Amino acid sequence: MQQELLIFSGRGNSKLSQDISDRLNIPLGDAIVNEYKDGETSVQLRSDVRGADVYIIQPTCAPVNQNLVELLIMLDAAKRASAKQITAVIPYYGYARQERKTAPREPISAKLVANLVTVAGANRILTIDLHAPAIEGFFDIPVDHLRAEPLLADRIRSLNLSNMVIVAPDEGAVDRAAKMGERLNAPLAILLKHRPRPDVAEVRGMVGEVRGCVAILLDDLISTGGTTIQAAEFLLRNGAKDVIAAATHPVFANIAWTRLAQSPISHVLVTDTIPLPKEALIDKVEVCSVAPLLAEAILRIHQHRSVSALFR
Amino acid sequence: MQQELLIFSGRGNSKLSQDISDRLNIPLGDAIVNEYKDGETSVQLRSDVRGADVYIIQPTCAPVNQNLVELLIMLDAAKRASAKQITAVIPYYGYARQERKTAPREPISAKLVANLVTVAGANRILTIDLHAPAIEGFFDIPVDHLRAEPLLADRIRSLNLSNMVIVAPDEGAVDRAAKMGERLNAPLAILLKHRPRPDVAEVRGMVGEVRGCVAILLDDLISTGGTTIQAAEFLLRNGAKDVIAAATHPVFANIAWTRLAQSPISHVLVTDTIPLPKEALIDKVEVCSVAPLLAEAILRIHQHRSVSALFR
Amino acid sequence: MQQELLIFSGRGNSKLSQDISDRLNIPLGDAIVNEYKDGETSVQLRSDVRGADVYIIQPTCAPVNQNLVELLIMLDAAKRASAKQITAVIPYYGYARQERKTAPREPISAKLVANLVTVAGANRILTIDLHAPAIEGFFDIPVDHLRAEPLLADRIRSLNLSNMVIVAPDEGAVDRAAKMGERLNAPLAILLKHRPRPDVAEVRGMVGEVRGCVAILLDDLISTGGTTIQAAEFLLRNGAKDVIAAATHPVFANIAWTRLAQSPISHVLVTDTIPLPKEALIDKVEVCSVAPLLAEAILRIHQHRSVSALFR
Amino acid sequence: MQQELLIFSGRGNSKLSQDISDRLNIPLGDAIVNEYKDGETSVQLRSDVRGADVYIIQPTCAPVNQNLVELLIMLDAAKRASAKQITAVIPYYGYARQERKTAPREPISAKLVANLVTVAGANRILTIDLHAPAIEGFFDIPVDHLRAEPLLADRIRSLNLSNMVIVAPDEGAVDRAAKMGERLNAPLAILLKHRPRPDVAEVRGMVGEVRGCVAILLDDLISTGGTTIQAAEFLLRNGAKDVIAAATHPVFANIAWTRLAQSPISHVLVTDTIPLPKEALIDKVEVCSVAPLLAEAILRIHQHRSVSALFR
Amino acid sequence: MQQELLIFSGRGNSKLSQDISDRLNIPLGDAIVNEYKDGETSVQLRSDVRGADVYIIQPTCAPVNQNLVELLIMLDAAKRASAKQITAVIPYYGYARQERKTAPREPISAKLVANLVTVAGANRILTIDLHAPAIEGFFDIPVDHLRAEPLLADRIRSLNLSNMVIVAPDEGAVDRAAKMGERLNAPLAILLKHRPRPDVAEVRGMVGEVRGCVAILLDDLISTGGTTIQAAEFLLRNGAKDVIAAATHPVFANIAWTRLAQSPISHVLVTDTIPLPKEALIDKVEVCSVAPLLAEAILRIHQHRSVSALFR
Amino acid sequence: MQQELLIFSGRGNSKLSQDISDRLNIPLGDAIVNEYKDGETSVQLRSDVRGADVYIIQPTCAPVNQNLVELLIMLDAAKRASAKQITAVIPYYGYARQERKTAPREPISAKLVANLVTVAGANRILTIDLHAPAIEGFFDIPVDHLRAEPLLADRIRSLNLSNMVIVAPDEGAVDRAAKMGERLNAPLAILLKHRPRPDVAEVRGMVGEVRGCVAILLDDLISTGGTTIQAAEFLLRNGAKDVIAAATHPVFANIAWTRLAQSPISHVLVTDTIPLPKEALIDKVEVCSVAPLLAEAILRIHQHRSVSALFR
Repeated sequence: MQQELLIFSGRGNSKLSQDISDRLNIPLGDAIVNEYKDGETSVQLRSDVRGADVYIIQPTCAPVNQNLVELLIMLDAAKRASAKQITAVIPYYGYARQERKTAPREPISAKLVANLVTVAGANRILTIDLHAPAIEGFFDIPVDHLRAEPLLADRIRSLNLSNMVIVAPDEGAVDRAAKMGERLNAPLAILLKHRPRPDVAEVRGMVGEVRGCVAILLDDLISTGGTTIQAAEFLLRNGAKDVIAAATHPVFANIAWTRLAQSPISHVLVTDTIPLPKEALIDKVEVCSVAPLLAEAILRIHQHRSVSALFR
Repeated sequence: MQQELLIFSGRGNSKLSQDISDRLNIPLGDAIVNEYKDGETSVQLRSDVRGADVYIIQPTCAPVNQNLVELLIMLDAAKRASAKQITAVIPYYGYARQERKTAPREPISAKLVANLVTVAGANRILTIDLHAPAIEGFFDIPVDHLRAEPLLADRIRSLNLSNMVIVAPDEGAVDRAAKMGERLNAPLAILLKHRPRPDVAEVRGMVGEVRGCVAILLDDLISTGGTTIQAAEFLLRNGAKDVIAAATHPVFANIAWTRLAQSPISHVLVTDTIPLPKEALIDKVEVCSVAPLLAEAILRIHQHRSVSALFR
Repeated sequence: MQQELLIFSGRGNSKLSQDISDRLNIPLGDAIVNEYKDGETSVQLRSDVRGADVYIIQPTCAPVNQNLVELLIMLDAAKRASAKQITAVIPYYGYARQERKTAPREPISAKLVANLVTVAGANRILTIDLHAPAIEGFFDIPVDHLRAEPLLADRIRSLNLSNMVIVAPDEGAVDRAAKMGERLNAPLAILLKHRPRPDVAEVRGMVGEVRGCVAILLDDLISTGGTTIQAAEFLLRNGAKDVIAAATHPVFANIAWTRLAQSPISHVLVTDTIPLPKEALIDKVEVCSVAPLLAEAILRIHQHRSVSALFR
Repeated sequence: MQQELLIFSGRGNSKLSQDISDRLNIPLGDAIVNEYKDGETSVQLRSDVRGADVYIIQPTCAPVNQNLVELLIMLDAAKRASAKQITAVIPYYGYARQERKTAPREPISAKLVANLVTVAGANRILTIDLHAPAIEGFFDIPVDHLRAEPLLADRIRSLNLSNMVIVAPDEGAVDRAAKMGERLNAPLAILLKHRPRPDVAEVRGMVGEVRGCVAILLDDLISTGGTTIQAAEFLLRNGAKDVIAAATHPVFANIAWTRLAQSPISHVLVTDTIPLPKEALIDKVEVCSVAPLLAEAILRIHQHRSVSALFR
Repeated sequence: MQQELLIFSGRGNSKLSQDISDRLNIPLGDAIVNEYKDGETSVQLRSDVRGADVYIIQPTCAPVNQNLVELLIMLDAAKRASAKQITAVIPYYGYARQERKTAPREPISAKLVANLVTVAGANRILTIDLHAPAIEGFFDIPVDHLRAEPLLADRIRSLNLSNMVIVAPDEGAVDRAAKMGERLNAPLAILLKHRPRPDVAEVRGMVGEVRGCVAILLDDLISTGGTTIQAAEFLLRNGAKDVIAAATHPVFANIAWTRLAQSPISHVLVTDTIPLPKEALIDKVEVCSVAPLLAEAILRIHQHRSVSALFR
Repeated sequence: MQQELLIFSGRGNSKLSQDISDRLNIPLGDAIVNEYKDGETSVQLRSDVRGADVYIIQPTCAPVNQNLVELLIMLDAAKRASAKQITAVIPYYGYARQERKTAPREPISAKLVANLVTVAGANRILTIDLHAPAIEGFFDIPVDHLRAEPLLADRIRSLNLSNMVIVAPDEGAVDRAAKMGERLNAPLAILLKHRPRPDVAEVRGMVGEVRGCVAILLDDLISTGGTTIQAAEFLLRNGAKDVIAAATHPVFANIAWTRLAQSPISHVLVTDTIPLPKEALIDKVEVCSVAPLLAEAILRIHQHRSVSALFR
């Protein structure tokens, strides 16, 4: 390939960016990403990007608006500096849960973000496990949508659990759980939720059977951990002999780890799409890295080779 | 209001358009919608639309491409004729099931349709029960997304069934079934599917209990009826005493009605978002009209009154 | 060239696509183009298109809306799969006759189609003998507009006709006929039409002289054949000794071939921009292939060589 | 109507603007349109346009680029000053003859102009007798395309000519001439041209008969007059007893009037879409005003009444 | 006016929004603007906005990215809820100082913000004292750009200072200072700066004379106060008898007020475009409210009356 | 590089284009740029541009509208002819002084021009010394903004002037003068202007000291020369021993050279961004060529090498 491959990192997940860079054996592009004294984000790309194939790695995890605008400003800088192609690498796509209106006069923030990223200058998106797959259609630029499922499945498989059941913590997670069930050849259980208002959900029943099983609670993300723990408790009350939580994105809002630590969940399996503070890395939390997956995907995009082959 | 309200009908569902027009007591706009001898669609709006608030009613049901292009051409005609505001009223939104890629190098046809309708001239969409709610976010113009749920719930309630269970025919339908369950205060069962390839699905299990119950199989649409009947047979084998199928959109592909007629399903409840041929109106098929719902929504849009209030 | 050249075929004219592919010695890209059971068009590109120079061949002949939407969906699939450049190869551009309003509140469908094809993802158009050359200006992407004139002229010349006159069947065809006349060094005659309404036209006079001549009735397309036959009869009544009809696009609406078979036209010369059913290939119909022309054009576009040189 | 109707005039045809204003009894909007000392065009709208229905009258006749940019700048000023709706009234649409490529690597300037006018801020176009009707389709905003034909026909009819023949000066003018022929119930003749290169054309024959007739040479515009005079001479050599030239747009390039004065054309009938210098108003030149037509069209647009009714 | 005027407030400056609302005697629109537990911004407009003329008040002051995204999400919500017209009222336009590149590969964040605000749904901008007036041209939607100058001038005039000199603290502020000088009929002095790097500036000289004068240091904003204080000290060293700082936007980064308190500046005159914490309201800081100015501007925009008249 | 580099010249500054071409040792692309007889601009690119990296050189100096439209038409031609990348090389960017509103209801013509150039087909801009640097942000395509400052500084330095002072002729020029002052290590003086109306300005004072110095009056352009001469006279009256005027763009409106010839300015240093007629090349006018600068920039853009390195 004659175009240069350049990788820049926002401040959203520097560790992941560095790991991808190491994996690819390509040093991170030199960029100053900072704040002016009044809090405005300051960006300068110091490496020349003219004609290059540029990847900007930035999950839009918390602080979400900060990380989002930082990404947008980096895209603007790369566009004006004549990058040939700019891929926004968004391992965790914030606002993905606002992908439809649940009440009148709400925004569809996930679509807004898609529009913002496009207008700022992205030519392509590389992301992992969107909360809703239809978000891919929010873009009119190509989206490479990776799945962490094989990664998590491999790790679960290596635990050699007997009598495993995959549990969807709510109706929306059934599809994902069903696929994992097929992959691991395990039965499925589904918790039914009641949502009196957003951010609040109560288990109101279960379909399927968990008695005597190790329940793998599978979701795309763990936010405050509250619903995950509530689910775990429900499962244990209903006879599960152990509960393991697995999720791609460790949002871990409101220092979720303290709650997880005290919970009856025995093991929490997540990836590093979102950086975790040291104090979150409690014993039961295990992090599988998506860096090899993203590195390989970047390389394949750069070389015009199939990306979909990666996550089959 | 000083702008004129004008309603035009494509040929997708003339009966529904007429019913809406009757309900509103506003005659349908005069339009010639036809084919040239070479099969190209010919449109001429004969009523003056200059400065008017125009509604074009056209479900994109089968023949879907025919109905879609006819809608696009009518939009183009209205736009060029200086309509002030043009609402595409799409009671059934075709291609809604292609709202995400399930394999690499697939289109996202539901998004393509959104782009086509917008570029052709629509300023607003009025639709009912989109297969996936995220399709609302495929548009950057306002979408009024009505729900037929209350309509169907009212009708089911009036059947005075005892021992009712709402059944989601697959994982994707759980959310809808759960809401209906809450509305009718009925328990929920979920069928689990295995899809070896698109358009083919096999029941591979159930969560929940239907023994001795009247099972209400709820989905957004009935296509060939095959999976619905398969589901019904499964439910009966598992002890259900009766199966009723309810769905907003009677797609009824491949003369589904002959299959439904011979099936053990006792009652099929649908709406008229899609027109049914006479021969489809077999005894067990009952059609609830969405005309009053659409008529009221059009009036509220025209008068700038809340539409969301309509389907709570 | 390092980008791959990939050719996909819609179902509009598979034979022509295959001939182009044979000519170029490049196999057609693997694609599934089909219908779901409910009639929606299903597309999956199976060949990887990432970074490739993609050509999608699809005339928008009858069934026009079917073929048009199929083209749009294929474009969407190629765009989302990261093709580098996508050329819509549209040998026959349907709706070209709706390129201007002839009555108020009509659409300009030819422009609508241009907008649709562009928004769906085409970066370039390759087409032949647009009904109106101004349609080229309906696009803001590059259009390579080939002419079949040299092809038809060569074939006519090889007939070694003496006393030939080129006849424009109506006022709009004068320009084309005049050019052919210059090319073949033959005189010109023009039929004058009266159009009481669209799709209906009556000959109301002629300028020029055809007595004792072989009249070559030249048009861009033959639709139902009705006006062509009417013209031929008029020419014979006015002393022409023979009438040959020549046109680029054999639309042949309403099984035109039965009418042509019984008509006094002795020879019908067309191209294969539109596929003809077996029964249309009656003795007097002769088809010149545009496959070599399109193959050469595709190659030149791919190699960034002049295309205009092709049809001088 | 509660929105104010405001008319501004560029410097392209102040007299026509004033006549329209007089006719409507609405004074022209106060605007400074001028040059800075370095030749840049200076515009300031002094009348408040906030929320108003604004019409900017400017034919893009010679000096065409000057008039075009002036129009664009006025549109920009009106847009930024929050006009509610802006109609570009372009009685003569310059560059209309560059509506298709006649050679490779030519621009399609007529489309470029459409794009420029739209991006500058026009919401609607009002124009008269576009050289090619397909230019209407170059726009995606509504175009009201008036015809001066009835105006010219009325005037010709009032001349009470006996033995009149309508002559199309070239192939492209046949359609227009044929319509006028029908309107005046007169026969048609067509001159055939040879164009060795752009701007040069030679008569190479005629179809039809003019002997003993008054020939009405009808075109959409008269440029240098050269081809018109050449045509007139040809007609007289072929037996016409008198030649009258009629055209909507008196482009009159290269002081065409001196040539027309010395020509055998007895009468030149034009409109005032383009302003003529005093010296052009020689005896044989007669100007019919389009001011009443434009005034009425503006009023109808403002009042949302049908414009097409105007020129039937 | 028949459209409803609705004012919503983001959380950027609730006090100012309330003051504008009080002034207009129109209660603020009911809206929930909040955070989800994971930090994503949650918005729901509870007042119906269908067909309304909506104003969303939100300065993009610190926390700038938070306030910016909140504004964008509110715009998206209003757009999707069918507001007729949406004005983003941005009393302080953050990122305005990034309106041009000062080094290669920098973003032009002020333009990026303009693009974001437009794509999110704003139809119009209302703002005050943009750092660079050219930012108005970053938008293609109308911008009403108010000036606080008259407000500040009135207040300064009322101080009845004798021997006043207006001082531009750097080269870029000369224009603003010169206008204020004309308005107050006072002489001008200019400080010359040296900027070794962004955010750092040193006074390297002065043109003009301040000896024995009360120096009014005029700028559009006071950031950390550092350069203002540096300038004040320079002026006092050069003989000024007193220094008053006046600026529209009290950015007051890094608790600037503690620095201002200890500085030799006797009086700091600002407006309330940016909210100040209680502790910033030290004795020498005086806040003039722009609420009356914004309220009047909103009313005039709503009523289609001239806004420019307001700040002459 | 495998793409061809092609340079075309408009008629705005053929000499400069030729000099760039010579410098690059690449012949100018063959293009016919002319007028039709009616004054419309006629363009045909005769060199094939398919897939090429095209540069179109055209300053939009007087006749500004003529040159601007010519540039737009050339861009349209190149775009439609399938150029791969099109850079508009605009050494002098006309309308740059209309980059903000100075009165209500004015256009922002500099932004309009940016929109026009983009819509016509430019993918990138290469320009020199924009009157206002924020104009760079008017574009969303990359802008390479060169500075002639080093060129002028080198020439001034070579004059070995002792006792030099750099003079900003008005407030807006302070920034530029300050930078030149730093570069040449010379003090700064600033003239204060009063502008009763556009195009008129009076010196109303000076800050700084010029007595006994050679004053270098530095501006981005010299228009009529009136204000420059007025400034020079003021400087001499205030003790300057000599005045040299230096500016990038010799607009020289209204035969400014006659006025400059008679003025007390001893030397006028400009560049060749704008072509000067022979009669303007009076003794005291010295022209430094930007051809080497532009040639090098074009080469670097073509080779994807840093351009900013050029003017540091």
